[in-house]
Amino acid sequence: MWFTTSCDLSFDIIEPTPFMLMLRPRRGPQQWVAREEYRLLPSVPVAEFTDGYGNYCQRLVAPPGPFSIRAAAEVMVPDVVAIAPGAPFVPVQNLPDQVLSFLLPSRYCESDRFFTMASEITAGHLLGYDQVAAIEDWLRNTIRYLPGSSEYPESAVEVNQRQSGVCRDLSHLGIALCRSLSIPARMVVGYLYNLQPMDMHAWFEAYVGDRWYTFDATQSKREDGYIVVGYGRDAADVAIFNQFGLPVNQSVHTIRVERCDNPSTA
Amino acid sequence: MWFTTSCDLSFDIIEPTPFMLMLRPRRGPQQWVAREEYRLLPSVPVAEFTDGYGNYCQRLVAPPGPFSIRAAAEVMVPDVVAIAPGAPFVPVQNLPDQVLSFLLPSRYCESDRFFTMASEITAGHLLGYDQVAAIEDWLRNTIRYLPGSSEYPESAVEVNQRQSGVCRDLSHLGIALCRSLSIPARMVVGYLYNLQPMDMHAWFEAYVGDRWYTFDATQSKREDGYIVVGYGRDAADVAIFNQFGLPVNQSVHTIRVERCDNPSTA
Amino acid sequence: MWFTTSCDLSFDIIEPTPFMLMLRPRRGPQQWVAREEYRLLPSVPVAEFTDGYGNYCQRLVAPPGPFSIRAAAEVMVPDVVAIAPGAPFVPVQNLPDQVLSFLLPSRYCESDRFFTMASEITAGHLLGYDQVAAIEDWLRNTIRYLPGSSEYPESAVEVNQRQSGVCRDLSHLGIALCRSLSIPARMVVGYLYNLQPMDMHAWFEAYVGDRWYTFDATQSKREDGYIVVGYGRDAADVAIFNQFGLPVNQSVHTIRVERCDNPSTA
Amino acid sequence: MWFTTSCDLSFDIIEPTPFMLMLRPRRGPQQWVAREEYRLLPSVPVAEFTDGYGNYCQRLVAPPGPFSIRAAAEVMVPDVVAIAPGAPFVPVQNLPDQVLSFLLPSRYCESDRFFTMASEITAGHLLGYDQVAAIEDWLRNTIRYLPGSSEYPESAVEVNQRQSGVCRDLSHLGIALCRSLSIPARMVVGYLYNLQPMDMHAWFEAYVGDRWYTFDATQSKREDGYIVVGYGRDAADVAIFNQFGLPVNQSVHTIRVERCDNPSTA
Repeated sequence: MWFTTSCDLSFDIIEPTPFMLMLRPRRGPQQWVAREEYRLLPSVPVAEFTDGYGNYCQRLVAPPGPFSIRAAAEVMVPDVVAIAPGAPFVPVQNLPDQVLSFLLPSRYCESDRFFTMASEITAGHLLGYDQVAAIEDWLRNTIRYLPGSSEYPESAVEVNQRQSGVCRDLSHLGIALCRSLSIPARMVVGYLYNLQPMDMHAWFEAYVGDRWYTFDATQSKREDGYIVVGYGRDAADVAIFNQFGLPVNQSVHTIRVERCDNPSTA
Repeated sequence: MWFTTSCDLSFDIIEPTPFMLMLRPRRGPQQWVAREEYRLLPSVPVAEFTDGYGNYCQRLVAPPGPFSIRAAAEVMVPDVVAIAPGAPFVPVQNLPDQVLSFLLPSRYCESDRFFTMASEITAGHLLGYDQVAAIEDWLRNTIRYLPGSSEYPESAVEVNQRQSGVCRDLSHLGIALCRSLSIPARMVVGYLYNLQPMDMHAWFEAYVGDRWYTFDATQSKREDGYIVVGYGRDAADVAIFNQFGLPVNQSVHTIRVERCDNPSTA
Repeated sequence: MWFTTSCDLSFDIIEPTPFMLMLRPRRGPQQWVAREEYRLLPSVPVAEFTDGYGNYCQRLVAPPGPFSIRAAAEVMVPDVVAIAPGAPFVPVQNLPDQVLSFLLPSRYCESDRFFTMASEITAGHLLGYDQVAAIEDWLRNTIRYLPGSSEYPESAVEVNQRQSGVCRDLSHLGIALCRSLSIPARMVVGYLYNLQPMDMHAWFEAYVGDRWYTFDATQSKREDGYIVVGYGRDAADVAIFNQFGLPVNQSVHTIRVERCDNPSTA
Repeated sequence: MWFTTSCDLSFDIIEPTPFMLMLRPRRGPQQWVAREEYRLLPSVPVAEFTDGYGNYCQRLVAPPGPFSIRAAAEVMVPDVVAIAPGAPFVPVQNLPDQVLSFLLPSRYCESDRFFTMASEITAGHLLGYDQVAAIEDWLRNTIRYLPGSSEYPESAVEVNQRQSGVCRDLSHLGIALCRSLSIPARMVVGYLYNLQPMDMHAWFEAYVGDRWYTFDATQSKREDGYIVVGYGRDAADVAIFNQFGLPVNQSVHTIRVERCDNPSTA
């Protein structure tokens, strides 16, 4: 399934301001980028590095005045998002090394506080995928999804108190619940086709059976058309931008996701 | 300067219990390990991997019954811990890529909440090393160091409310304050010669000038004899052990650090 | 300085054939890619990984029949290729860890065989950059550059016997000579603006002073407009494609490099 | 199965001489080090880094005069070296990313020259493990194993011409033959219990089925008691030491491997 994605950001910059950005879709076994564009206006020097999670990060210093960034791509993703009811829990000793850090608590996922709650939510479910699906259902039915309701990330503890949140917040709670049961879980930031209202999106993945699976409590059913920009422990790792120094004024922010034909046959 | 270190852990295990351990001193440009021992009793299969911070981590499943671990080493560290009053703040755009993740908030270091407080503490100080030294002084004079007072890590916000804590807690607050000023800061776990009472220790490092420098608000002056076991964003990354499943009973825990002669000339 | 680059490859495939490709310009501190396109016709699944040198590699299985690949980009590179006469030799003990593997002999750079020859070529020159410049001059004046003259990579020993070669071959000899003097040297594959005749190009870099510098014995003077696709120890690491199984027939192969305006201001 | 290993090196050094050493057994899923010692006499500063293959490498500058190094360890390895007749060939497109570089030709394994020969040697054998076993048999029966016969590594082409060689040389030819058939193969350096005459040893591994398997044409049957110090593409990557500058005089070199009891139960 092919999509075109774009993210347009515009800022009013007061003083030279360092940015770290994460705007380029990932390229992995499940996702291929056939075309990509990354424009800066005005043009400034920019450097790229790959962070510890394999995300592509860009570094630049925005000059005073209006500054805009456009990141667009043509991306192929699987036609259907994989599901795997019954996929078993993986005992910690059998997990791959590189998955282990996704068992630990992190800034917005205080998994050390959720064992009892997670046990209750998943009581009676098969260990593994079905536990995560029970957590996702519980989130969907319990935590009100209010897109646009918060400006800063809320941690799992805060979301659980408030009983509502944006996509990022629901993911934090889902991740904390999974990790408290020794199921590795990670935050994903990216695009979702047909998201209402359209914006950058966040969901989570859990490692059961022998791979990562997609979960998203903000949608009433499993949608297709997820395009991954970044993976991390929580929102602190996958901000689409971090800005340092005086806060900047973000004047515009436009996200688009459209289906397109396989570009090779177009 | 040469030291022998040892850490003895004993557990009563009820059911087979997966552990991740971090007990081996690091080997880097500043620290060399001439002899090392790592005993498990009873002996069980154990595997080692290197985590994303370069720490040596061991994985094993402890069998039911008494289980003990002994990790001992002979380590060379610099004769004097480096200090650098006046070392300048490094603007974010000039930091090495691999340092950037230590600017972000993490589980126990909610640096997104401390900018105003950090600005007040460091007012009037030169940007860079002197700001961190001012933070260290402020911690030393403000937050009561109570070794053994808490069992679980406390976050910077909690430590600041409570105004007291163990070494790990003071470090969390120090790190959060540094990061809020865009100074990279990381947690260090390891040994400190002559620590009173002797135990595993935690302190923090800040990146200013062109390297990491050691800070420790639990000591009244800069001590020498720090031996590094692990680096991380905060205590969540550098637990000397993580245990999964039913909680285990830790029955004994003995730490020793002694000076020794250069073993090659002994 | 901005360029558009493109590489078009066409193959006649007999049986399903695995490929590893290296066709995407690198993104680093010195080089930025503002637009990129990577088309496969027919479209097949493709996965990307980053190799041990940080190069972007693509994996796919080409289906029987005509198969074509187009990789195009808009790339910014420094206006002027840096030179540094007098930049000093770095004693091995002071080299960064990640540079050390470029001191060792490799498939096509038998540096263990060239110490005497390299000493003679560089006699009387300052240690460091000037030695490498002397090697480059010697290659330029001694080894005949015959673009298109060889199909398979030749090793430094072979090139030295034959006294002629393509860009890749001259680089192998240059690299072997540098390494024999304990100067780290690496192969670069990429594009060069105004190369005659136009094709993919290969040159080499040597590490002196505190960074890598560009050398190219195929050009009579230091040109600008080098666009890097891959780094490696020698041609074995940076083939633009490796193909496994029955040899395939490569029917077309077109390379283009054009100057373009800064795309952000266009 | 537990072993104590030791390697003692002594040198007469004329001028300060940089060394890179690889003397510490690896720690991985299959091999655990319970005790280790690494002595330098006289004692000099030493730093450790992990190379691109995960090997532990030490860097130091040896001072003029006699200089000795002792690296000893207590190591647990599997009781029986795994064999897997019938384990299938893995098509290139299904190989894990990190294995791919072991398909390429390297300094001493000119696999690009051996396809025809490898096809003949393995004719009639099942693709995969059985091909590698056929190559191992062919080496054993064809290339004379002459321990101590060569000082410098010989490449696969040279070994094939000479029809004899040391352990390292036989491995080079075995690796080149495997790679020419698109079977990943890597060099291993380490210890072998009961090796006659005792010395550091080299063998090779091939990736078939879903893992690496051990092969060693120098022994008449599959021995147990292999202790791994380093992995690499060939001998250029896994020298137990690389020395830079004026050649040094290696005066003594003693290797020991003994069986020992499980140290935890001793």
